[in-house]
Amino acid sequence: MANAANTANTAFTTATLAQAFDTAQAEFRQAPPLVQCLTNVVVPQITANVLLAAGASPAMVDTPEEAADFAAIASGVLINTGSPTAAQYSAMREAVRGATANGTPWVLDPVACGGPAARTDFARDIVSHRPAAVRGNASEIIALSGIAAGGRGVDSTDEVSAALDAARELANRTGAVVAVSGPRDLIVSADRVTWLRSGDPMMQLVIGTGCSLGSLCAVYLSTSLDPHDAVLAAHAHVGAAGSIAAEKSTGPGSFSVAWLDALHALRSPHTGGGSPLADLVEVEEAGA
Amino acid sequence: MANAANTANTAFTTATLAQAFDTAQAEFRQAPPLVQCLTNVVVPQITANVLLAAGASPAMVDTPEEAADFAAIASGVLINTGSPTAAQYSAMREAVRGATANGTPWVLDPVACGGPAARTDFARDIVSHRPAAVRGNASEIIALSGIAAGGRGVDSTDEVSAALDAARELANRTGAVVAVSGPRDLIVSADRVTWLRSGDPMMQLVIGTGCSLGSLCAVYLSTSLDPHDAVLAAHAHVGAAGSIAAEKSTGPGSFSVAWLDALHALRSPHTGGGSPLADLVEVEEAGA
Amino acid sequence: MANAANTANTAFTTATLAQAFDTAQAEFRQAPPLVQCLTNVVVPQITANVLLAAGASPAMVDTPEEAADFAAIASGVLINTGSPTAAQYSAMREAVRGATANGTPWVLDPVACGGPAARTDFARDIVSHRPAAVRGNASEIIALSGIAAGGRGVDSTDEVSAALDAARELANRTGAVVAVSGPRDLIVSADRVTWLRSGDPMMQLVIGTGCSLGSLCAVYLSTSLDPHDAVLAAHAHVGAAGSIAAEKSTGPGSFSVAWLDALHALRSPHTGGGSPLADLVEVEEAGA
Repeated sequence: MANAANTANTAFTTATLAQAFDTAQAEFRQAPPLVQCLTNVVVPQITANVLLAAGASPAMVDTPEEAADFAAIASGVLINTGSPTAAQYSAMREAVRGATANGTPWVLDPVACGGPAARTDFARDIVSHRPAAVRGNASEIIALSGIAAGGRGVDSTDEVSAALDAARELANRTGAVVAVSGPRDLIVSADRVTWLRSGDPMMQLVIGTGCSLGSLCAVYLSTSLDPHDAVLAAHAHVGAAGSIAAEKSTGPGSFSVAWLDALHALRSPHTGGGSPLADLVEVEEAGA
Repeated sequence: MANAANTANTAFTTATLAQAFDTAQAEFRQAPPLVQCLTNVVVPQITANVLLAAGASPAMVDTPEEAADFAAIASGVLINTGSPTAAQYSAMREAVRGATANGTPWVLDPVACGGPAARTDFARDIVSHRPAAVRGNASEIIALSGIAAGGRGVDSTDEVSAALDAARELANRTGAVVAVSGPRDLIVSADRVTWLRSGDPMMQLVIGTGCSLGSLCAVYLSTSLDPHDAVLAAHAHVGAAGSIAAEKSTGPGSFSVAWLDALHALRSPHTGGGSPLADLVEVEEAGA
Repeated sequence: MANAANTANTAFTTATLAQAFDTAQAEFRQAPPLVQCLTNVVVPQITANVLLAAGASPAMVDTPEEAADFAAIASGVLINTGSPTAAQYSAMREAVRGATANGTPWVLDPVACGGPAARTDFARDIVSHRPAAVRGNASEIIALSGIAAGGRGVDSTDEVSAALDAARELANRTGAVVAVSGPRDLIVSADRVTWLRSGDPMMQLVIGTGCSLGSLCAVYLSTSLDPHDAVLAAHAHVGAAGSIAAEKSTGPGSFSVAWLDALHALRSPHTGGGSPLADLVEVEEAGA
């Protein structure tokens, strides 16, 4: 919110993002981050494959008995509320406890927040435990913030821009970087708002692209990058891979395959030097 | 069973099916059906990807707490008995209750009916709650009907045609459209019997092609189509995609990818007009 | 340990392995083995697809209620400890009970043994029930044997050769064939040590290649092959497919697809006769 910060942020460009991305890749090559995922029953396989393709090691340690101890040694933790069983909720609380006690960054993906009441209540409660980042679609972020409760309706057709106030409120209250995924992604911190243009509509036709993005946020938050830049880099990685995949595929099946290949290929520098990312995404820093 | 109906049915041809298929695609483009799946732990990812490729939205809402409320708002519900835990059985009963109360069509896929006694008992009980459709292989349908209990053996080598009497009995008793999947699919209603030739043997080497077909039946049953035609269209969609995939693949891995691409491609009309389906499947109406 | 056996074993070559492999394929064509998998939540889909591609039938029957009865009729059973819930542990004990009572060969994959204490304890206890084979990475095998408890550290960077003593101890104590997976695989029985060179590093970037290998060991152990040869053939099948896939892919997504295709293609003889396996793997018999 200070002017100096705004000036600095405004200077953040697509080229700066590409540099941050390359810094992260170098760190992954030194030591692959170990990311613990507590996620829903539909996406563990694609999530694990995305993490491996991106240079990380997945660990789906999600029982109440093991979750806290593992979160203490993990590089990052994903909490995805898509599997709302009592055991999962209990394991998620344990993982957050272990992560918090040891300074492990954790990410909340509040799947279907605003839908079933118990999911909404759980997500609203756990977000108060200070995640490093929150990632969801516009409707989920609006429902999570609660500020729209008496106002406009919350449904899956909310536009990303409609979630700006909710994202700001969440970022200010919890200290998290709040990411709203959509045709353009919106990344919001207490003192910074960034728009990212990347990706391809075909990503909506492959299950787990969003859930995997949540796990990649945890990967990048384990690096030396500034948290806002880390979340931005995760979204850029996923989106740039989507652009590449769109050119190499003929439908959602081949897109999914090409997307995993591209997530992996993006880790390596261009043969002519320079990051391959810079040509594939577009950053617009919008101040605070 | 009336003569008039028989005459009308006999006039149902591959071209009629292609028209029904196109009608459904137009409806999906207007509003993607939201299909709730209570399915087994092996296939949620492929099932979700099939639903997305085919123009629907998947929702794997399968806890006892959430299942009934969601079934009330879903376009269709799949009950696949492949994960026989107490929690799943309870959630399935709740989903059927919610679906029934609100007129949501639901599909029963009685996985392994005729195998473990508890699964067989559960499937035989829940089918009495009037599903819109039942889909299984010949052995499962025979076991579900119970009419072969004292007769010939029930095993996985049963031919599709051996299940005709069982399918008729189930259709008459429950009001459901009963589909028996195999090299030729058999679709049976109280007053109609249709054979469908489509697909490719490679489909047997990809897990979840059958389970996904169950979820697609729920998709098509949410349209304005006659239920018998809807189940037929779901089978034709899956089978036609299989024929396309067989020509573009070199084994079960690439087949699976090409099959998802083809499920998606089939939603669009031929560039020269006319449905792409008509050249890929063959319908034979056999009366009642 | 007898000299005669050593002499015979030393004569075991890559060509001998290719013959054993072909023998198994012929048996699979006669009757596909039915393999029951109790495995973790991340890999059931890829495991099922691998089994289908390789000529077997998967059955993920993993509840305490059904596990024992099914193990009695299955051709082989996989126990993968990656999903450490109370229900899974109970089902695993039931499956081992059913398998033991009926002479069904079963395979232990002690995932994360040496990590969480409860997993380590469970794996160490169940291995005493005489599995036909144990398969893991070096760290897991060392932790399972327990012989390194007071010695060097056990972590995921252990080299395969560091697990030789542990594998020998386990093989002698339990009667199992013990396989240590890595860049070179180590297969150890009470009277035999074999090294296998095969595969490709890209396999490490696809989730479930190792877990699927465990299930394939159960497939081959259901044949007429000597158990040591059976475990070797399973590893060779997986590794040879990896070599083929590496040449046909451009990243982990396309590798995974090509690997499934290759697992399937390897089942058929070369057009010019002779097994395709012989050119893709290398066996070194190292005595006892």
